[in-house]
Amino acid sequence: MAKTAIFPGSFDPVTYGHIDIIERCAKLFDYVIVGVLHNQAKSPLFTLEEKKEILISVTSEWSNVTVDASKGLLIDYAKEKNANVIIRGLRSVSDFEYEVPQAIMNRKLDNEIETFFMMTKDEYQAISSSLVKEIAKFNGDISNFVPAIVSEKMKLKLNSSFE
Amino acid sequence: MAKTAIFPGSFDPVTYGHIDIIERCAKLFDYVIVGVLHNQAKSPLFTLEEKKEILISVTSEWSNVTVDASKGLLIDYAKEKNANVIIRGLRSVSDFEYEVPQAIMNRKLDNEIETFFMMTKDEYQAISSSLVKEIAKFNGDISNFVPAIVSEKMKLKLNSSFE
Amino acid sequence: MAKTAIFPGSFDPVTYGHIDIIERCAKLFDYVIVGVLHNQAKSPLFTLEEKKEILISVTSEWSNVTVDASKGLLIDYAKEKNANVIIRGLRSVSDFEYEVPQAIMNRKLDNEIETFFMMTKDEYQAISSSLVKEIAKFNGDISNFVPAIVSEKMKLKLNSSFE
Amino acid sequence: MAKTAIFPGSFDPVTYGHIDIIERCAKLFDYVIVGVLHNQAKSPLFTLEEKKEILISVTSEWSNVTVDASKGLLIDYAKEKNANVIIRGLRSVSDFEYEVPQAIMNRKLDNEIETFFMMTKDEYQAISSSLVKEIAKFNGDISNFVPAIVSEKMKLKLNSSFE
Amino acid sequence: MAKTAIFPGSFDPVTYGHIDIIERCAKLFDYVIVGVLHNQAKSPLFTLEEKKEILISVTSEWSNVTVDASKGLLIDYAKEKNANVIIRGLRSVSDFEYEVPQAIMNRKLDNEIETFFMMTKDEYQAISSSLVKEIAKFNGDISNFVPAIVSEKMKLKLNSSFE
Amino acid sequence: MAKTAIFPGSFDPVTYGHIDIIERCAKLFDYVIVGVLHNQAKSPLFTLEEKKEILISVTSEWSNVTVDASKGLLIDYAKEKNANVIIRGLRSVSDFEYEVPQAIMNRKLDNEIETFFMMTKDEYQAISSSLVKEIAKFNGDISNFVPAIVSEKMKLKLNSSFE
Repeated sequence: MAKTAIFPGSFDPVTYGHIDIIERCAKLFDYVIVGVLHNQAKSPLFTLEEKKEILISVTSEWSNVTVDASKGLLIDYAKEKNANVIIRGLRSVSDFEYEVPQAIMNRKLDNEIETFFMMTKDEYQAISSSLVKEIAKFNGDISNFVPAIVSEKMKLKLNSSFE
Repeated sequence: MAKTAIFPGSFDPVTYGHIDIIERCAKLFDYVIVGVLHNQAKSPLFTLEEKKEILISVTSEWSNVTVDASKGLLIDYAKEKNANVIIRGLRSVSDFEYEVPQAIMNRKLDNEIETFFMMTKDEYQAISSSLVKEIAKFNGDISNFVPAIVSEKMKLKLNSSFE
Repeated sequence: MAKTAIFPGSFDPVTYGHIDIIERCAKLFDYVIVGVLHNQAKSPLFTLEEKKEILISVTSEWSNVTVDASKGLLIDYAKEKNANVIIRGLRSVSDFEYEVPQAIMNRKLDNEIETFFMMTKDEYQAISSSLVKEIAKFNGDISNFVPAIVSEKMKLKLNSSFE
Repeated sequence: MAKTAIFPGSFDPVTYGHIDIIERCAKLFDYVIVGVLHNQAKSPLFTLEEKKEILISVTSEWSNVTVDASKGLLIDYAKEKNANVIIRGLRSVSDFEYEVPQAIMNRKLDNEIETFFMMTKDEYQAISSSLVKEIAKFNGDISNFVPAIVSEKMKLKLNSSFE
Repeated sequence: MAKTAIFPGSFDPVTYGHIDIIERCAKLFDYVIVGVLHNQAKSPLFTLEEKKEILISVTSEWSNVTVDASKGLLIDYAKEKNANVIIRGLRSVSDFEYEVPQAIMNRKLDNEIETFFMMTKDEYQAISSSLVKEIAKFNGDISNFVPAIVSEKMKLKLNSSFE
Repeated sequence: MAKTAIFPGSFDPVTYGHIDIIERCAKLFDYVIVGVLHNQAKSPLFTLEEKKEILISVTSEWSNVTVDASKGLLIDYAKEKNANVIIRGLRSVSDFEYEVPQAIMNRKLDNEIETFFMMTKDEYQAISSSLVKEIAKFNGDISNFVPAIVSEKMKLKLNSSFE
């Protein structure tokens, strides 16, 4: 039976850490859905459409990866997509602590969908979207943390938002 | 000498995890005061009056439990109520890390009032008010996490706030 | 392409927590190998042969699960078995802290084999082989933590070792 | 109804951190039993009898505190003593991580006995019996960490064991 | 070669914990720069100028300590000041978790500038600027946590902001 | 005034993580003493003399680094060497948890000697002497984790100990 994994996230912006996980999933699952969470609470740098456009571009080499907008409750979305597994990246104890209750609650809501935790390469472990944004805001060099398409679009965004 | 414990919290909303702790305290202390913190900073789902009403309802079977609004500094409130013990629930390392400095500072402010940390049943460890609210917001099933009175009132609240 | 997962462990003894993870893996992977680590350093309660016998018994309902002795370096063993994934259970921050460097080192030794972390059901999160042994040693009731075959064999073991 | 708390530990040796907790319990409970665990696995510095003698001496000012040897499973011992509460000190995340599964397992074994976690004064948080022993072994000054009776007996012990 | 350390922070307000670290750095480095971060995101109690004035006052006894406003990216600021070391205080696992990715990212941005982590005295470990503000807001006694100049200025601030 | 740092450790064996820290200290302090702890409790792979010989070899390029055997209590040894700073590497929360009480106790024993915590490069964060030994024991490739001199000597050691 074909297996589908969902990798949900804000991807504001997508980093090399996220892409490392997507690449590994693309090798291990039949289908991988990158689910962009539409988080109204935070004011994101990129719109949902921009995030999807960037993700489609940086995942174009893996034919079994699709990019989609995740709406509503994650577990409902996973069920709707017939996903077997939710993938979550772990970088730190804080990540772990944040993810554990979510995974347990998701299991209580639907026992058929599993959560797998993965780690990025060690050289990407410290990278987070929020640190990347902070560095970019002050014109720091983010080329080791995100693909070129991201750093270009961030530059445009941040310039326009300050002018 | 009769012993009084205060169990402070936001209770937005009260969950089965909170109620588990209240029940255990009701057996171990002469008096238990559930102290609803009036937190102006966050925008709570329920008003202070609604929270008190719900808590009175879900704790009605324990005659030594009273529900009250906690105002000002917790340690001053505890002193005013002649409480001997502050009860705090621990679910995770993050909870522990958050509680430790508060307990130490409280001891520095008043060495006579003790803080006891308790754990809920393991099946309630992952439940938090914020996860319950998120699940309810998307019409997820919260009946395993909160009493019926809470899920009903949340449904009313969330419907009206989205219409 | 068929996917194989290895779930390594000491299984001294196997608990309901381990079995929960094996069951979930059996649904998600084509083949699951339960790899019993032969740890010379600690003095285990059960021999390698006894552990294998118990594991074969408690996993008999899943036809794609095999039980094997893992020898040498885990990553070499996984390669030898053409496994794609190493499965590790996470119960706590301590588990996470212990597993992270192992997973990173394994990736440095072989970038093709992935580590997935999973969580048991919350009601099994506190169970560990060592706590089960300690409870059994003092004739405590372990029937909620391990299958009947394990508690019987432990009783025999512990009686004989004390007489 | 009178309430009894058990404070179990190795007390090898008892430190000011332990005594701080005993003192606080003596104020809050009707009876406090200091339960010296007889741990065969580790090779303790002091014998069970020596530990009891020291503990009786350092807790003599609190008339509701008794010192006893805890045998077998802690939860059975607590039941035998009609204790309502097990007291455990928390100094660090590691302590917390170690205590959580024990408390959950104890609750599964007997739901009537509660575990309360307490913190010592911040100036005692770093003190552990093992660090005290290590400092004493090299003739370091332990007078701020343990009562005089302990440092004297440790000096005698360590001298004789090295000669 | 003379060594310069930068101790960056929000200092809203400076506490005895911060001052303990500044004092220790003043003994170990040739120059110490206290870099007040100008954080637009949070709404601080004190303005940048007020913070600098207070810090100059409470560090006046150490002639090698200067107070400055840190602008832009911390690593750029450190380079501009020819600093060799960034000093960060650690009170808890949460602090550690927050600091690790920042330190790693800073090293990736400039490998010549080192981050040293220090701990305050144990009696200051629980003190944080945010807890101090919360206590002060409710007229609690903060005299053990901050210098007199801070508690005076806080009283003025908080009175005016509530009237 | 010249500043001296002591970097104590078991170095069984020294890894690239240790060497990264030594190199950074060599740039920041006037003198760096690598203090090999003589730990009788564990049975080390290398003798004290072998460890010193290896460390002298791998630190030969830094003229201000000396290698020495640390005896007795670390804080006494540091005082004897007129050291100002003890350097400890942090890789994980577990390391942090282990180091905090040691640093606090050391400060209580001698307030003039400071502990600085440093982090290795992220690519060395997962490396530990014990993992390196485990990998070497099974003929795994350790060339990315330790210098050539170490892997050669480990090979000799492990061969002879198994024959």
